[in-house]
Amino acid sequence: MIAIDWGTSSLRAYRLDAAGKVLAQRSTPAALLACQGRFEAVLAEQIDGWSDAHIVMAGMIGSRNGWREVPYVACPAGADAIAAGMLAFEAPALPGRQLFIAPGMSDRAVDLQNIGTPEVMRGEETQVLGLLDDLPGAGPHTLCLPGTHSKWISVEHGRITRIHTAMTGELYALLTQHSLLGALMDKDAGDDEAAFARGLQTSRGSGGLPNQLFSVRTLGLFGELSGAAAPSYLSGLLVGHELNGLAPATGTVHLIGSAALTRRYERALAARGLQAIAHAEALTARGLHRLARARGLVG
Amino acid sequence: MIAIDWGTSSLRAYRLDAAGKVLAQRSTPAALLACQGRFEAVLAEQIDGWSDAHIVMAGMIGSRNGWREVPYVACPAGADAIAAGMLAFEAPALPGRQLFIAPGMSDRAVDLQNIGTPEVMRGEETQVLGLLDDLPGAGPHTLCLPGTHSKWISVEHGRITRIHTAMTGELYALLTQHSLLGALMDKDAGDDEAAFARGLQTSRGSGGLPNQLFSVRTLGLFGELSGAAAPSYLSGLLVGHELNGLAPATGTVHLIGSAALTRRYERALAARGLQAIAHAEALTARGLHRLARARGLVG
Repeated sequence: MIAIDWGTSSLRAYRLDAAGKVLAQRSTPAALLACQGRFEAVLAEQIDGWSDAHIVMAGMIGSRNGWREVPYVACPAGADAIAAGMLAFEAPALPGRQLFIAPGMSDRAVDLQNIGTPEVMRGEETQVLGLLDDLPGAGPHTLCLPGTHSKWISVEHGRITRIHTAMTGELYALLTQHSLLGALMDKDAGDDEAAFARGLQTSRGSGGLPNQLFSVRTLGLFGELSGAAAPSYLSGLLVGHELNGLAPATGTVHLIGSAALTRRYERALAARGLQAIAHAEALTARGLHRLARARGLVG
Repeated sequence: MIAIDWGTSSLRAYRLDAAGKVLAQRSTPAALLACQGRFEAVLAEQIDGWSDAHIVMAGMIGSRNGWREVPYVACPAGADAIAAGMLAFEAPALPGRQLFIAPGMSDRAVDLQNIGTPEVMRGEETQVLGLLDDLPGAGPHTLCLPGTHSKWISVEHGRITRIHTAMTGELYALLTQHSLLGALMDKDAGDDEAAFARGLQTSRGSGGLPNQLFSVRTLGLFGELSGAAAPSYLSGLLVGHELNGLAPATGTVHLIGSAALTRRYERALAARGLQAIAHAEALTARGLHRLARARGLVG
């Protein structure tokens, strides 16, 4: 089979054997918006020479701005329900092949104050399915995929039960690139562990995020934070608020992401006494193989 | 005397009689950065024909990027201490005149977790001094000056005792102009009271601000929030977090600001059972007159 991880900014293609082993791998920066109207041609070119009958895709390719919009599957759902939600179709440029796009997932939790807003994800559910065999026992497990829009995902008995999103990475980018705070920063500075830890500490104080952000400016004004340390301090402040809102009080968090990001989150979790286990982020091919199995396409 | 309110983007000049009554008023968009190196000439032109001996200024004109940097006066301080902190100087282009710039104020509160960061303001302290006579009794009073950087100021026995800043207005501008959320918004839409109230309600729920911001996107995705309602919803969410962090649990908040802004904050305060009293924002001339009296320059 062929597994395709097609997100907002790139396409990764994997050729898998029946057991899910990766036989070959290709990738291209095929941004979704740039591929509008020619998804079929882009895909055909990318998998040229791979003759497998089943092509299973996941990611934003199934969104409103993608090739075909695939409705969300609601929480809780495991591999079987997600596989059943896959959209099957054929494409003239790929005769004899069967194409599938995995659905995203939605959630609508209501809290103790009866306040709730919808949550969604596309792509992360497939990464989580790729990790399921590595999780110890039935759970509940807490997973965190840090990034532009960090996802916090609960898993129990092989099913995804809960989704929460935090716009931490996007807030960091906005504040460093466009705010008054960004003007005070040396943006090329590397990771400053002490400044990150100090930002985490500030996030545990009172006043709330809109108030605490101002400390990036005032600490600089009083010579207590250098322009080189300011980006790491801001990162600690924002990650701290993500954890304030979404991290469990105790236990273990499974991190899925790049080494640079998961190291930061490991430090942030350790600072509040939480265990972290970091996993490699290349899980989509495994997750797609699991979906193909659940749909009866392989194995 | 002449009172000058010189902020980041404009200069307002007032000619006052000995009792503080405004005899004449002028204003010009004299942005601080554009006036670098020629503050004296800009001021002389603006007060041309006004022969009063004392010129008392407040605002960012006393900051590092202003005409002369005036050190902050620490909390707690009242009119006498702030007046004593005014910088007096002369300017060759204004012979026979005595110029003063009011200091800003600083604060460093430490909370129960022993976490504290510095707070500062420049200009707002003078507005507050202009309001002192209108506050009922010795207090403590809570004042809120909403804006790009909202200020929350505590006043007791005629002294400013505490400062907190919330970057609410700047976050709103960043998110509407530069974020993924902004792309979903009709930015020309007017105030939508119901959407603002819904944003306030979301802010009282769990998850924290980086999480709740994502609901601007998902509510839109599920057809529950129009592009025209999204800016008001975002505003309610951000103002709600400002209040979560900085508003008192009970009592009255004195608002100083434009009618449009104070009306929004009145609604936000009412939603959590707090009283609001709105005051006009043109208080700086009165505050400067009070500083001149305290320094012995008039009356």
